[in-house]
Amino acid sequence: MDDVVTAALAIIGDEILSGRTEDANLAYLARWLNEEGIRLTEVRVVADDEVAIGKAINALRNSHDYLFTTGGIGPTHDDITVDSIAVALGLGVECHPQSLAMLEDYYGKDALTDDQKRMARVPAGADLIPNPMSGAPGIRIDNIFVLAGIPGIMRGMLEGLRGQLIGGTPMQSDTIVVYAPESDIAGFVRQVQDQNPDVSVGSYPFFRKGRVGAALVVRGTESGRLAEVLAALTYQADKLGLESEAESTG
Amino acid sequence: MDDVVTAALAIIGDEILSGRTEDANLAYLARWLNEEGIRLTEVRVVADDEVAIGKAINALRNSHDYLFTTGGIGPTHDDITVDSIAVALGLGVECHPQSLAMLEDYYGKDALTDDQKRMARVPAGADLIPNPMSGAPGIRIDNIFVLAGIPGIMRGMLEGLRGQLIGGTPMQSDTIVVYAPESDIAGFVRQVQDQNPDVSVGSYPFFRKGRVGAALVVRGTESGRLAEVLAALTYQADKLGLESEAESTG
Repeated sequence: MDDVVTAALAIIGDEILSGRTEDANLAYLARWLNEEGIRLTEVRVVADDEVAIGKAINALRNSHDYLFTTGGIGPTHDDITVDSIAVALGLGVECHPQSLAMLEDYYGKDALTDDQKRMARVPAGADLIPNPMSGAPGIRIDNIFVLAGIPGIMRGMLEGLRGQLIGGTPMQSDTIVVYAPESDIAGFVRQVQDQNPDVSVGSYPFFRKGRVGAALVVRGTESGRLAEVLAALTYQADKLGLESEAESTG
Repeated sequence: MDDVVTAALAIIGDEILSGRTEDANLAYLARWLNEEGIRLTEVRVVADDEVAIGKAINALRNSHDYLFTTGGIGPTHDDITVDSIAVALGLGVECHPQSLAMLEDYYGKDALTDDQKRMARVPAGADLIPNPMSGAPGIRIDNIFVLAGIPGIMRGMLEGLRGQLIGGTPMQSDTIVVYAPESDIAGFVRQVQDQNPDVSVGSYPFFRKGRVGAALVVRGTESGRLAEVLAALTYQADKLGLESEAESTG
């Protein structure tokens, strides 16, 4: 039995829901988590609204080992992630002394404005996540990791978490591309999946350079088994006279 | 009081949660819905798992006027959206005669395989959404719109829905860019927001061409009010001697 550790992500921001900004953090976080042996199993995108954020936070933190949030931690009035999480957890909000010291150092102690000071606020008892790339820290409270929405800063905060989480067995994946309509290969793909329940087989159709095909992605925790299932898929494609080729995936 | 009509989106697919594929439908759907006078207020990304899909479907269809899903409607074993929605709604699955006729027409009646026939399956009582662009129809059952995951096909299905949904007052938006750190402008932005509660003001920081700034996005249903709030923000930026410029947004 594999040791499965799961995570959820709450993407916080009206700008994502309005279509103004395309999220650029989900796929990066998913791949980062996988490297740490953690599987992203649910994502929610919620508005800049305390009730909506609180509902998502409480649902996701209880049903997953870890919860990540992105967005809403800047200095402006619409940055309400810290306050919303504190309310959801029944905690107060306090100024983190180390975070305040960093801001005083950056802006100058006497020049620091109230709006700048807002960036040092954390749910009571929270720890900072050091950011080796840009300095701007993230926030950890219980099993919740509060990250920035700006991709470059978010990635720095993840670097500060590298090796800090307890992961399980990492998922590995391998891919074969078959040049045929999905409905032509659905039969043997289903058969191979049924015969190999320990490996997950996904079929993702595409139109690429004017050609129809499907990427067959095998996922599992044992690379030897992935190779066997990939060989079975290749064999079946060959038998139907279909062109196929290996594709490297992350 | 505005007439607010809301929608949710369930993105179905292991390939999104694994980071293999970046979603390319959320922002497009959000903008399309806005043109129809509908606001996207929540998104969930769930795995190819009947229980996970059913839970998301039932939560979202009851809390929003409309629910859209993307992904999982192809012919392969991992395409379980139709079955999962049927289970969630307590419905059977049936073959849609019009959809079957289209498939027979395309593949030839005698050549049609069982896997190809799978694509004609719908929750009992569902209607088809015509796709003027590629022919491949979507599925409508109650307030749920089941769309393809492949962006080009998904967009065609949306074209088939244009003008078919009952929308409310469309949101409009306008943007001013101010070249200053967010914490320098947070004070006046908050003040303008407080003085204009009928308009929503969002602040989105950026680093662009080596310059720090923030896009201030005003959203509301009356364009005259947006212009007034934008003028107030511009006035305040000018007063602080900060460079600003208009930016057109969708």
